[in-house]
Amino acid sequence: MVDISIISQTEFVRIWSSSLSRENRLSLVADMCRVNALSSIKKAGSGHLGSSLSSIDIVTMLYYSELKGISHEKNNPDRDIYFSSKGHDVPGYYAVLYSLGLLPKDQFILLRRIKGTCGHPDIGTPCVEANSGSLGMGISKAKGMAFAKRYNNKKGRIFVMLGDGELQEGQNYEALLTAVNQKLSNIIVIIDHNKVQTDKQVCDVSDLGDLELKFQTFGWHTARCNGHNFTDFEGVLRSFDKIIDKPKVIIADTIKGKGISFMEHPAALQAGEGLYRWHSGAPDDTSYQSALSELRQKINNQLAIFGLDSLKLETIAPECKPSASISEEYISDAYGKALLEIARKRKDIIVLDADLAADCHIRTFEQILPSQFIENGIAEQDMVSMAGGLALQGLLPIVHSFAAFLSSRANEQIYNNCCEKTKIIYACHYAGLLPAGPGQSHQSIRDISLFGAMPNMEILQPCNAEETKEIVNYCINQTKNNCMIRLVIGPSPRVINLPSDYSLSKGSGTVINEGSDAIIFAYGPVMLHESLIAAELLAKKDLSLKVVNMPWLNVVNQSWLQSVIGEIKNIFILEDHVLFGGLFDTLMYHLIKIPAFYGRNVELLGIIGLPAWGRPWEVLQYHGLNGNSIADKILTKSDGNNEDT
Amino acid sequence: MVDISIISQTEFVRIWSSSLSRENRLSLVADMCRVNALSSIKKAGSGHLGSSLSSIDIVTMLYYSELKGISHEKNNPDRDIYFSSKGHDVPGYYAVLYSLGLLPKDQFILLRRIKGTCGHPDIGTPCVEANSGSLGMGISKAKGMAFAKRYNNKKGRIFVMLGDGELQEGQNYEALLTAVNQKLSNIIVIIDHNKVQTDKQVCDVSDLGDLELKFQTFGWHTARCNGHNFTDFEGVLRSFDKIIDKPKVIIADTIKGKGISFMEHPAALQAGEGLYRWHSGAPDDTSYQSALSELRQKINNQLAIFGLDSLKLETIAPECKPSASISEEYISDAYGKALLEIARKRKDIIVLDADLAADCHIRTFEQILPSQFIENGIAEQDMVSMAGGLALQGLLPIVHSFAAFLSSRANEQIYNNCCEKTKIIYACHYAGLLPAGPGQSHQSIRDISLFGAMPNMEILQPCNAEETKEIVNYCINQTKNNCMIRLVIGPSPRVINLPSDYSLSKGSGTVINEGSDAIIFAYGPVMLHESLIAAELLAKKDLSLKVVNMPWLNVVNQSWLQSVIGEIKNIFILEDHVLFGGLFDTLMYHLIKIPAFYGRNVELLGIIGLPAWGRPWEVLQYHGLNGNSIADKILTKSDGNNEDT
Repeated sequence: MVDISIISQTEFVRIWSSSLSRENRLSLVADMCRVNALSSIKKAGSGHLGSSLSSIDIVTMLYYSELKGISHEKNNPDRDIYFSSKGHDVPGYYAVLYSLGLLPKDQFILLRRIKGTCGHPDIGTPCVEANSGSLGMGISKAKGMAFAKRYNNKKGRIFVMLGDGELQEGQNYEALLTAVNQKLSNIIVIIDHNKVQTDKQVCDVSDLGDLELKFQTFGWHTARCNGHNFTDFEGVLRSFDKIIDKPKVIIADTIKGKGISFMEHPAALQAGEGLYRWHSGAPDDTSYQSALSELRQKINNQLAIFGLDSLKLETIAPECKPSASISEEYISDAYGKALLEIARKRKDIIVLDADLAADCHIRTFEQILPSQFIENGIAEQDMVSMAGGLALQGLLPIVHSFAAFLSSRANEQIYNNCCEKTKIIYACHYAGLLPAGPGQSHQSIRDISLFGAMPNMEILQPCNAEETKEIVNYCINQTKNNCMIRLVIGPSPRVINLPSDYSLSKGSGTVINEGSDAIIFAYGPVMLHESLIAAELLAKKDLSLKVVNMPWLNVVNQSWLQSVIGEIKNIFILEDHVLFGGLFDTLMYHLIKIPAFYGRNVELLGIIGLPAWGRPWEVLQYHGLNGNSIADKILTKSDGNNEDT
Repeated sequence: MVDISIISQTEFVRIWSSSLSRENRLSLVADMCRVNALSSIKKAGSGHLGSSLSSIDIVTMLYYSELKGISHEKNNPDRDIYFSSKGHDVPGYYAVLYSLGLLPKDQFILLRRIKGTCGHPDIGTPCVEANSGSLGMGISKAKGMAFAKRYNNKKGRIFVMLGDGELQEGQNYEALLTAVNQKLSNIIVIIDHNKVQTDKQVCDVSDLGDLELKFQTFGWHTARCNGHNFTDFEGVLRSFDKIIDKPKVIIADTIKGKGISFMEHPAALQAGEGLYRWHSGAPDDTSYQSALSELRQKINNQLAIFGLDSLKLETIAPECKPSASISEEYISDAYGKALLEIARKRKDIIVLDADLAADCHIRTFEQILPSQFIENGIAEQDMVSMAGGLALQGLLPIVHSFAAFLSSRANEQIYNNCCEKTKIIYACHYAGLLPAGPGQSHQSIRDISLFGAMPNMEILQPCNAEETKEIVNYCINQTKNNCMIRLVIGPSPRVINLPSDYSLSKGSGTVINEGSDAIIFAYGPVMLHESLIAAELLAKKDLSLKVVNMPWLNVVNQSWLQSVIGEIKNIFILEDHVLFGGLFDTLMYHLIKIPAFYGRNVELLGIIGLPAWGRPWEVLQYHGLNGNSIADKILTKSDGNNEDT
């Protein structure tokens, strides 16, 4: 494994306290923060590098030279406030905080770890002023802060950083309108206009047109500058000081991947044959070493010119990999293949995407069946209502996004579609607690509750690639209802084996481990894997646990249920969801109708409170949902004792 | 009661087949449709008159003279499509359909009745192409239709009518952007620019700025005309015929209330001292007679000039009022008063509104405490995230809208706020099945499921004015959690009496009728009223029903629950909600922990399938949720039989 190095905080003090010009110091500090952002992502194994690099000059400038307030402390009500609405750029932000001594090293080097920092900004981290990761909320939130400052007669400006792709979200335009009408002039929006969203150019995904003119027609004061030029940027801020009757926006022209030549747009896009590779995910060892070396050399060259000592780097401990095995199986990949296979034959299928084609494994679909593919940009509400219009005209739309976004952002639109009694399929990727690195905005642990009350909606989640194919086929070719397909995005921790005579049967699950002392219902490869570990552990203690894969999350076949519980007294329901509104709801509805049910012991396991972020194993452990914890709970709660309150 | 008159369809045939000029015929027909829209609303007792009157000239023009297709039949794939995104204007639309013989008289005269037409467009009604009532979805839906036509190589344009207030919703801007990028040029958006939303001027609620320029910066082709001048309007449509590379929008300047002098803006606004009275609700008898007389006289004057016979009107049967009593109590009014009283003392309270101040009973608050009031326009997402920003700065935001909109449109924003661990109160008015006239978009029967999985969220619903005051006080002054207050908007069918020693106690309900044979848990005045009727009916059959008011919808005190069910074997849970994700979920979670629970019979009653629209009594009956039906179910399901599947 390659060594990972960071620049310690003392080095930042050395450079910042040198006698170099402010521009030179800012430039050096920003590049040093680039090193640290790069290394923290390399150590974490994931994180958003491209937009950290494009925005880091601006963040450095703000924190070193512009923001007023006592060390940016939250308890100073007159402070300037800065936060990022897009949130992707947070590794760069953490690097700046660390460089100023505002974020302890122990926390900084644990990006996306439970005791470190979250993959998107979280209010619990020092200096972070707002949660983000769900796009398009920043200007609205800044409005609330600006109103509060005016209402409380406090000083301080509100700076909010937006991505350009993010401007495809409609909420921004609500906020542009109301900020002006509510005379909230104390807001400065900064657009990190790096021209690339996820892996394609903004102009190719969903072109924004003339951005400056757009803001102007909403009544905002606008300026445009080079977001990597400190003098330019500061000049705009000084010009803004004179504008007191309007909210203000800087369109900062930046370069995605700035500072690492092979990550810079547009070169990187060409190298990737039209796809930008460095939006998220950690660089491989070679790329990391090459990037580090380039940055280091640039900084050292500068230092040499200025007669300063070369940079000192310190090696940090690499990530301890857990011993847990991970399979090669990706359910999301199986999904993409199954969908493509069917859609080749069914020309009425139209696939809709909201800038997550690669993650939702429909990039191949886009390339092979372009006429059946609609790229909608980051505009989930528009995508869902557009699907409604397609369905009204007799087509079968299949809508894609992450479960957390689709189930909530577009909830009213989905319901409106349901009211029209058409058929639409909602493919909800990234469902469940894991991966937990990106944090609460991305972890989808409410989606069953958000879809469950929709009329004519079947919710299904496959446990493996085979079942994924069955479910895709069922949803497209068999049922007349709307469907929500709930899909895990990461690799399956193990391939869940289904019996050789397996077939998908409405409302019925499959026993994947026989047992007679207790029974556990679970869904998806993550929770089934943990259930099987629990079964293995319990077997050693002479407790045999029946494990049931239940792919139907809001449909239960009553007679199957009666048969599968048999005489087993202890019934456990394991949710990859919060306790409210998951499988429990539907199972209980049916269980209480079984006369033989009475006298049983039912226990509900699932996510309590806000989901933790971190590596899979630590997050499962934190929530008591790893195999060990489940086994312990089953041991404690079984035997008909239910003294719990 | 005043006579209600309509103009029969034969009169429209007479006028349309006359030898008058097309403009004169269109003008006469539009005014005749005004008569019928007015009368249908008068008969219904509610409905949106103001925007029916502003848009009716345009709809008349489109249906009589512009739309291509065989009688606008849905089975012609090459037809032009028209639908209204705002949906408020549907009484005017129905009048036009009726005039053309496209909507049977029996259905037309039953506005907002179960066997008639819905208060917002519903796909089940002849000629209606899309459901609306949830604002801001129309352009997106039109995009889907336009894509389908292009994909299927079919002819026909897509016309979609928007309100101007509706343009405050962000989804519109997503759709403006993507329509251009997806080259969906076959869309014609019509803005019924009547300058008044609900009861105030658009420019005063949340000014839209230069509308034409806004559309242009999004890449749309624009035109502006007088929406009451047929020649002008048609001229624009002909100019659009030549524009084949862009979607198009007509800003049609119209007058809200057009055709009835005292309902016309701006005179009506002045008469209402700044508030427009005729947005929704039926006119009183005097206003109705005066309006009818004015329209009739205008039409007859025209007919006389052209040498045609005067108009024949036919009287239609007035609405049969049910004998059911209704109390004088409005819980929403009690809410507004309680909130105002507390906020006078707590200056940290900030009230946010999304253009529903009168309906949410916070108009008085706005007038008395203007500095603590934020009008946000129809932009729920922005409002909720703005509340997030206010809370982060230490204020206590209280957010208002209808439950159906707030719980779904702003769901992701509410969750994001919860993740910041601040405290915000969400006042969700118009919760539950009733009133059912406005239809599915407004009936809020999923909101508990949508709020239930939020972290640190308590959901409460008061049963009467007294409990409303207690709950408002609890939410503001006692709990540290977020709160969702679920409020019925209509008059309480009876005042629910609480015991003299009543006090609000966390997780505990109140017995409002003693009984020992069966117990029913219900919430809100509507369902408690029906439960009490059931209890009265069952008492005659020697079955004593214990009725429990349960104001806590996701919090249950275990020991209270154990005590209140006592030895009662038959347990019923009555939801003013669909079966999924309501009170049942939380009650079951706790019931199964009670050892003495086992052997009981639990039945869940609630709304199954899409909610019906209509009068309260017919809708309750349709869903089997009136007192009679509930009593029948309790009789059938009690005695420990649970042979149901």
